Amino acid sequence: MQAVPLVLAGFGNVGRAFVRLTSEKKTMCRERYGLDLHLKAVLKTAGGFFGRTLPEWDEIVELPAAETTRHPAWQSGLGLADVFSRLEPGVLVEATPTDIQTGEPGLGHMIAALEKRWHVAAASKGALVLHFTELTALARKNGVGLKYGGATAAALPTLDVGLFALAGTEISRIEGILNGVTNHILTRMEGGVSFSDALRETQEKGIAEPDPSLDVDGWDTACKILLIANSVAGTSFRLSDVRRESIRSVTQDDMRKAGEKGRALKLLGRFAKENGASWAEAKLVSIDKTHPLFGVSGTNKGITFFTDTMGPITVMGGRSDPRGTAAAILKDIINIYRP
Amino acid sequence: MQAVPLVLAGFGNVGRAFVRLTSEKKTMCRERYGLDLHLKAVLKTAGGFFGRTLPEWDEIVELPAAETTRHPAWQSGLGLADVFSRLEPGVLVEATPTDIQTGEPGLGHMIAALEKRWHVAAASKGALVLHFTELTALARKNGVGLKYGGATAAALPTLDVGLFALAGTEISRIEGILNGVTNHILTRMEGGVSFSDALRETQEKGIAEPDPSLDVDGWDTACKILLIANSVAGTSFRLSDVRRESIRSVTQDDMRKAGEKGRALKLLGRFAKENGASWAEAKLVSIDKTHPLFGVSGTNKGITFFTDTMGPITVMGGRSDPRGTAAAILKDIINIYRP
Repeated sequence: MQAVPLVLAGFGNVGRAFVRLTSEKKTMCRERYGLDLHLKAVLKTAGGFFGRTLPEWDEIVELPAAETTRHPAWQSGLGLADVFSRLEPGVLVEATPTDIQTGEPGLGHMIAALEKRWHVAAASKGALVLHFTELTALARKNGVGLKYGGATAAALPTLDVGLFALAGTEISRIEGILNGVTNHILTRMEGGVSFSDALRETQEKGIAEPDPSLDVDGWDTACKILLIANSVAGTSFRLSDVRRESIRSVTQDDMRKAGEKGRALKLLGRFAKENGASWAEAKLVSIDKTHPLFGVSGTNKGITFFTDTMGPITVMGGRSDPRGTAAAILKDIINIYRP
Repeated sequence: MQAVPLVLAGFGNVGRAFVRLTSEKKTMCRERYGLDLHLKAVLKTAGGFFGRTLPEWDEIVELPAAETTRHPAWQSGLGLADVFSRLEPGVLVEATPTDIQTGEPGLGHMIAALEKRWHVAAASKGALVLHFTELTALARKNGVGLKYGGATAAALPTLDVGLFALAGTEISRIEGILNGVTNHILTRMEGGVSFSDALRETQEKGIAEPDPSLDVDGWDTACKILLIANSVAGTSFRLSDVRRESIRSVTQDDMRKAGEKGRALKLLGRFAKENGASWAEAKLVSIDKTHPLFGVSGTNKGITFFTDTMGPITVMGGRSDPRGTAAAILKDIINIYRP
């Protein structure tokens, strides 16, 4: 039995879903994978919880966000350094909000963890998108795992398929519907709803954020195709290298015209290697019925890898919510420790 | 750099495709994975080649099957035991024909390899289907890899997704179009062609074997769903446990009726866990447009895993030919040695 200390940074929807999932799956992880997962600490910006046991985690995770700091076990000012200094290395679960300007606070967390030889399983994208080469090199140098399935389309297995199932192939092209919010809005617009109404409805359902720009302006798709390409095709894209389109400009007229031709307008994350050069983009593309992603609607996602020796391979589905992301983090932890 | 001695048993279409692929991918495997692949021997029933180097393999693989035994380097009577006794352990590539009555000659080959602590990458199904529990236990006991992606739908990544990308989930149901021959025949029948004409055409194209019963009577699909379920859901099915249907009974009238309702008749490999009991089958099922595999036509394949925490995940595509199978074997070899 391998003891696996876990430290969670970030206690939003994904962080909470991860605590619940770990509690539910604890016995299965012992029995099936020989992993004894122990959540040791949960950290927010101003402090956190440390050294709790399962019944208490189950209680803490149910607290409304505003009340966590008033819980008797809350330790104001508690930081990652305090926690790392008192634990054997395990896995840092990085689930703080994505900031694509600075990469913080995830960047500081991940560097601190990797330097202390903790593995990292990340759901936040900022640090990876801004400092992909440096972070992966640091993990390699220190012989620890750096996984980010939760940041690259959650429960849709993009990296596992690209790295593991397609090992030995040349991936010449990738096309993906990688963002559930924009795909849901575009699907609603196919039904005749305007962009602003579809956006409002998507926000009311809790699918889109109050500030939807990361999603609708293509940033999230750009981040994901960057991480996928850099991981599986060995590129070194930075975010500024990825061409990007917003879906704000799509009109009902655009949708109607595509529909009349039997086509669908999709925001695709695309990567290609052509004549020795590579490019990546988040782009509005009109696809027809023969495209493998034509039927991917609503919050669903999908990705197609075009390879030399295995042909094209498409993966579709996977929950597009905090629980799906939590499941992807747990999967990454299991695979980090796989013998 | 890790030296990887390879011994190939079986020199039919898949074996030949594997020799060609290994020759093409040798440099890439060194550079990207640090693996120095060396094909040391190729064995057929009555003898084989041993100790050759690359230019000679490239020449041997181009010989017509009838002429291999007349090549000056052919060693009559050469067997696996001779080869294993003169090599450091590496990987046995098992690509002999599938025999689901006896499992031979693959069974003897695989036991000999695992006992000598050679890893095994198999494309033949017979031994695994008849002795799954024993062979996997022997590999585990001796601390070596036993992979069979080439036997479970070739380049369609069924096991990698089920075991690796879905780690930590409960897989409650699996549905797959796992056999390209039957799917091609059924697709042709949708176009109004009779079973016998579709079969003859499929044989003329070299897609179906002269004796097509392994495919059209559902044996191949039954073998694959057995191997997938036993691997990813921890069952211990034997072939006699898997209900099986032949597509010989399908009439043009059946196809027409399904088409009129907007449905398609597919041979599905299915597995489910219900109320604590598990079952597996190869069954003709009429599916509608909402089924994730509805669009999988011709020799294409696809599989859907239904999970508790990640939702349903579908994989489609992957070359359905000897080169696709060879690519799956190479992928398994790379993953066996993955640090």
